[in-house]
Amino acid sequence: VAEGDRLPGVYVGPSPSDVIVAAVREGGANVVSEIGNAEGVVWLSKDVGSLLLALHRGVRWVQLPDAGVDAWVDAGVLDGPWTVACARGCYGPQVAEHALALLLASTRRLAEAAKAAKWPVDRSWGFTLCGSTVAVVGAGDVGGALIKMLVPLGAHVLAVTRRGHPVPGAKFTLPSSQMREALRSAQVVVVAAPATKDTHYLISGPEFAAMPRGGVLVNVARGSLVDPMALVAALESGQLSAAALDVTEPEPLPEGHPLWLHPSVLITPHVANPPAAKERSLALRVRENTRRFVQHEELLAIVDPVLGY
Amino acid sequence: VAEGDRLPGVYVGPSPSDVIVAAVREGGANVVSEIGNAEGVVWLSKDVGSLLLALHRGVRWVQLPDAGVDAWVDAGVLDGPWTVACARGCYGPQVAEHALALLLASTRRLAEAAKAAKWPVDRSWGFTLCGSTVAVVGAGDVGGALIKMLVPLGAHVLAVTRRGHPVPGAKFTLPSSQMREALRSAQVVVVAAPATKDTHYLISGPEFAAMPRGGVLVNVARGSLVDPMALVAALESGQLSAAALDVTEPEPLPEGHPLWLHPSVLITPHVANPPAAKERSLALRVRENTRRFVQHEELLAIVDPVLGY
Repeated sequence: VAEGDRLPGVYVGPSPSDVIVAAVREGGANVVSEIGNAEGVVWLSKDVGSLLLALHRGVRWVQLPDAGVDAWVDAGVLDGPWTVACARGCYGPQVAEHALALLLASTRRLAEAAKAAKWPVDRSWGFTLCGSTVAVVGAGDVGGALIKMLVPLGAHVLAVTRRGHPVPGAKFTLPSSQMREALRSAQVVVVAAPATKDTHYLISGPEFAAMPRGGVLVNVARGSLVDPMALVAALESGQLSAAALDVTEPEPLPEGHPLWLHPSVLITPHVANPPAAKERSLALRVRENTRRFVQHEELLAIVDPVLGY
Repeated sequence: VAEGDRLPGVYVGPSPSDVIVAAVREGGANVVSEIGNAEGVVWLSKDVGSLLLALHRGVRWVQLPDAGVDAWVDAGVLDGPWTVACARGCYGPQVAEHALALLLASTRRLAEAAKAAKWPVDRSWGFTLCGSTVAVVGAGDVGGALIKMLVPLGAHVLAVTRRGHPVPGAKFTLPSSQMREALRSAQVVVVAAPATKDTHYLISGPEFAAMPRGGVLVNVARGSLVDPMALVAALESGQLSAAALDVTEPEPLPEGHPLWLHPSVLITPHVANPPAAKERSLALRVRENTRRFVQHEELLAIVDPVLGY
């Protein structure tokens, strides 16, 4: 920034966090307490309505706190003169770690163990990830980080991506048009693709039927990618031996839903990105994007209005 | 084997498995159907009493199916002219994989999620393994394999071994006399040491007190290494936030035991080594030890009567 230039004002809210405020200052901007005076907005809540009401034509940059922005895009946050950046690329390792936790919980039947609360008679229990084939559907931040974690554990990884360009660590990468080929040999399927019009109920009855009997499903992406009634049917028929979900349709999943009642289903309440880890990772992104904003460079992770992520 | 040599007879029982019988044949021995005619015995059950009754002075090699042999040694299986070999070195990766499953289940609060069976109000959930410090107590097959899995996930690993010789992958290795020093910085403690007289209740009240508040305990070794009442107390006070156990004292853990009732305790019924994986790994050891037996070479994993493992 040339000497004498006025530093741009960035609002952090609706409830400012010390860590994120410090990141904006380290990035070289002024922190302003009124959104009306802001040229940049770092929004830390899920409350899209309040954000839309407060945005004005002086705002040039909106920084969202999430990596998956389907709900923000649907609500119209892209409809304005501002550039919207998200947290794509920030949370891959921590969400992939949760995916690995859910995956191992499924192969090792931990949900059944936790729910049984007694020593079982039948102890022919689970299977090893080592030597199993895992299909990772979606190889962005999360899928890519997960594949790096799976390979040293001895899993054979198949990646499924939109175009099928080779993914590092995956034995094969197939385009989404050939997803069922990948599922045919996969004891484990992990859903890690973005939620878009094209991925709604991507995994439904025919996909479960393509998998080997007794496989497991993990979803850390969005509930809308998996048809919940087809999932229940696949579990009840024994086609799937277990499922572990960090995301559901709807959220919160209502009490008494068949997925809550199934002994081998494990559901975590959309918590793959624990708060302390999320704040640490977001702060790094906010500092860097503030620096770029101040210095008129292109921001990281601009949301593409056509792709919707 | 010189031409004309009589091949030694090896008994596989009490219920022979095709895979293990094939391994003995591949190793170059005859499989005999009566233990009375056997020079080698590959014992596939937990029934130590029947084994002791059937052993006779013609037996020169007893192959046990387990890596941890405390129960076999206590029962007197070493008291004879035969050499006893165990499965030490066979099952490290698969048991370490279960330890990783239990570890991630603890840090990500999966037991609570499974037991709650509804979407919780408080979603400030768990912590990341990445950036956490993990103390691995015992760095034999299982601990060593686990450390290799933890390092790529971004955990800081401290190893605790009898003598404190450096363990590959561990940031520091401390001798067991300084174990509490390691525990002081460990959000996660994994017990993977053999059960001996010296390791009885190795982890008890003072060890839990040394850990940072809110840590987690994983035990994949033997129930006797952890004082169960001290564990319950540490969970009830909040000193520990979770525990995951594949082994308990006693086994089976009786219904209604406080460990079954605690929301953040996960217990699997001594199944870290799933049957299919166990048989595959044991077959490799049986084939190799049969070859060595036939060719009069030193067997792998001979049980040391002084160390007791």
